[in-house]
Amino acid sequence: MKKVIILGSTGSIGTQTLDVIKNFRENFEIVGLTAYNNVELLSKQIREFNPKVVAVKDEDKANQLRENLKKNVEILTGSKGLQEIVKYDADLVVVAVEGIAGLIPTVTAIQRGKDIALANKEVLVTAGQIVMDLVKKKDITLLPVDSEHSAILQCLRGNDKKEVSRLILTASGGPFRGKKKEDLRKVTVNEALNHPNWKMGKKITIDSATLMNKGFEVIEAKWLFDISEDKIDVIVHPQSIIHSMVEYIDGSVIAQLAAADMRIPIQYALNYPTRNYINGINFLDFSLTTQLTFEKPDLETFRCLSLAYEALKIGGTMTTVLNAADEIAVSLFLNKKIEFLQIAEIIEESMKEHNNIQNPTLDDIINVDKEVKEKIAKKYMR
Amino acid sequence: MKKVIILGSTGSIGTQTLDVIKNFRENFEIVGLTAYNNVELLSKQIREFNPKVVAVKDEDKANQLRENLKKNVEILTGSKGLQEIVKYDADLVVVAVEGIAGLIPTVTAIQRGKDIALANKEVLVTAGQIVMDLVKKKDITLLPVDSEHSAILQCLRGNDKKEVSRLILTASGGPFRGKKKEDLRKVTVNEALNHPNWKMGKKITIDSATLMNKGFEVIEAKWLFDISEDKIDVIVHPQSIIHSMVEYIDGSVIAQLAAADMRIPIQYALNYPTRNYINGINFLDFSLTTQLTFEKPDLETFRCLSLAYEALKIGGTMTTVLNAADEIAVSLFLNKKIEFLQIAEIIEESMKEHNNIQNPTLDDIINVDKEVKEKIAKKYMR
Repeated sequence: MKKVIILGSTGSIGTQTLDVIKNFRENFEIVGLTAYNNVELLSKQIREFNPKVVAVKDEDKANQLRENLKKNVEILTGSKGLQEIVKYDADLVVVAVEGIAGLIPTVTAIQRGKDIALANKEVLVTAGQIVMDLVKKKDITLLPVDSEHSAILQCLRGNDKKEVSRLILTASGGPFRGKKKEDLRKVTVNEALNHPNWKMGKKITIDSATLMNKGFEVIEAKWLFDISEDKIDVIVHPQSIIHSMVEYIDGSVIAQLAAADMRIPIQYALNYPTRNYINGINFLDFSLTTQLTFEKPDLETFRCLSLAYEALKIGGTMTTVLNAADEIAVSLFLNKKIEFLQIAEIIEESMKEHNNIQNPTLDDIINVDKEVKEKIAKKYMR
Repeated sequence: MKKVIILGSTGSIGTQTLDVIKNFRENFEIVGLTAYNNVELLSKQIREFNPKVVAVKDEDKANQLRENLKKNVEILTGSKGLQEIVKYDADLVVVAVEGIAGLIPTVTAIQRGKDIALANKEVLVTAGQIVMDLVKKKDITLLPVDSEHSAILQCLRGNDKKEVSRLILTASGGPFRGKKKEDLRKVTVNEALNHPNWKMGKKITIDSATLMNKGFEVIEAKWLFDISEDKIDVIVHPQSIIHSMVEYIDGSVIAQLAAADMRIPIQYALNYPTRNYINGINFLDFSLTTQLTFEKPDLETFRCLSLAYEALKIGGTMTTVLNAADEIAVSLFLNKKIEFLQIAEIIEESMKEHNNIQNPTLDDIINVDKEVKEKIAKKYMR
């Protein structure tokens, strides 16, 4: 029986994680769940999965929850709640909260010796070195919960890392694949939110349209698989069937292919290294898969991907700047305060202005994140 | 230092095996080489690789070889020579001879506890059960040397066989892909020899045009990977970049991709489980790989593939009949004695006429092979 805590259980990854766990009820015990706002759904999840402890945004939400529930459950609140809940007895913490808010709870969970299933980008993008050093020190397992890194983990399986020559991350190319800068000047929020293959949250959908999402994945791949950035390539593969690949020194490339269904990588992280059947999963039918195509990413039009490589090469707090600036710029775009191409411009500007801290502490990272966000907000939010 | 004997060192796989070994001269010692007719090339190989012992077709060839060589090397002859040479001290025997002639030497080598790198189809197609039982009993490693089974071996690497749901063998489809029976009635030998992706011997090239080659691979896969035929699928993939795939119960498919270069699977078998760089190998460039496509095989037009599944389901000596009838039928076609579509007809006829032996001995297999070939030859060779 694996004891599990899910941070962010009402979001897209959180609900799908519970959906997967329903397939293996005898293997998992839900110890803790957390939500930010969605008390209704959290109440339903509590009734179904019976956690010992939950956490919500604030006292208001806690009170709403108490009214909703007839049963006794411990309720924590605020960012402190996230840090406290991971201290409960558990084997695995699924980090499915969004944003830098995921960082300290993840670090706390690792310090307490818990395995991590990581669906939060910021943890490794901003603090990859600190987190992976701690993973080694505490000898815990940190497993990715996204299709690309799960694919790479599967393609490395049983192989010797010394024999890897390249990681090849595939990118759908998003809704603006094939477009040039001049085509993108006036795109609307709705156009940018219209992702061809995956249904995801707004932030990550815009990050897919700018290719920043792939940039973040390059950074994560460096830390997850301990490989330098010049050995991590991105190739555009619009059908999103090959989820990523590993090239070996003998000329062999191992690829993982699957339907675009997040329950597959979630299952892999939850049951790792065991593979299990999940009810309702679509299997690929190659007689229906007419073609798989590939293109070089257009780094000039999709400048965000280059910026991610640059930030990664510089290291230190520069990737925190990349992430913070992107978060605010995307939010400005979603609120129609800036145009699509300004997202990259704002990030580049923030990177230029930043005095890099080469070996940052967690506090440095949190502070840089805050400063960069405030600075951009001040400039553009009027 | 791995001691190696190569049966069939002057053929396509034999010469490429030596080519690969040149990359790792410090890791391999060539103990024995064999050729059938090509004494010139064998002489050259003896000078370069210095084997203790060689084998050739007959005394004539042995005398030619003695004249050619200035140095002392033991020379064996005939089919007995192949059986004797595998008794020399060695770790690995590469079986690259063609036809049923490979069977007894392979069995002898396994009985002597030697690992096998198998490039001969007949060994497993005709005697899969006997050979694999012996492999288990002698606890040796039998590794495939063809791109499809090497791919599957790589896709199984590090995984639990209980979690496999299907093997998916890819087929180029050969030169007649997309054609219907009426289109194939009058095809010439040269048209059938014009394989789109691989340069191979004539027999295997015709077997690729009929899809019988894929049928043989299905049979081999059953024995190599201990999986029932209803879990082995064939999909046509004309670009021959994905060399085969394994589908797992979680919906993940693992694929191996590489350039169409036999040195890659040869290297994998020689150095297994280590992967090594080979000079001059082409790495895939996905920015140039415009597309990978897939189609269902047309089992009505390419009847040989169905016949292979049927023979495998029946078991016993039926796969020996399949193989023997195909060998003679292809030879008749190459000699313009029969038409292309008659290849399948002859095989089907032979299978219908055969009284199957369910648990054959090696002698049964050799006898059935001989009888079937003689019967067809008698009927069609006038």
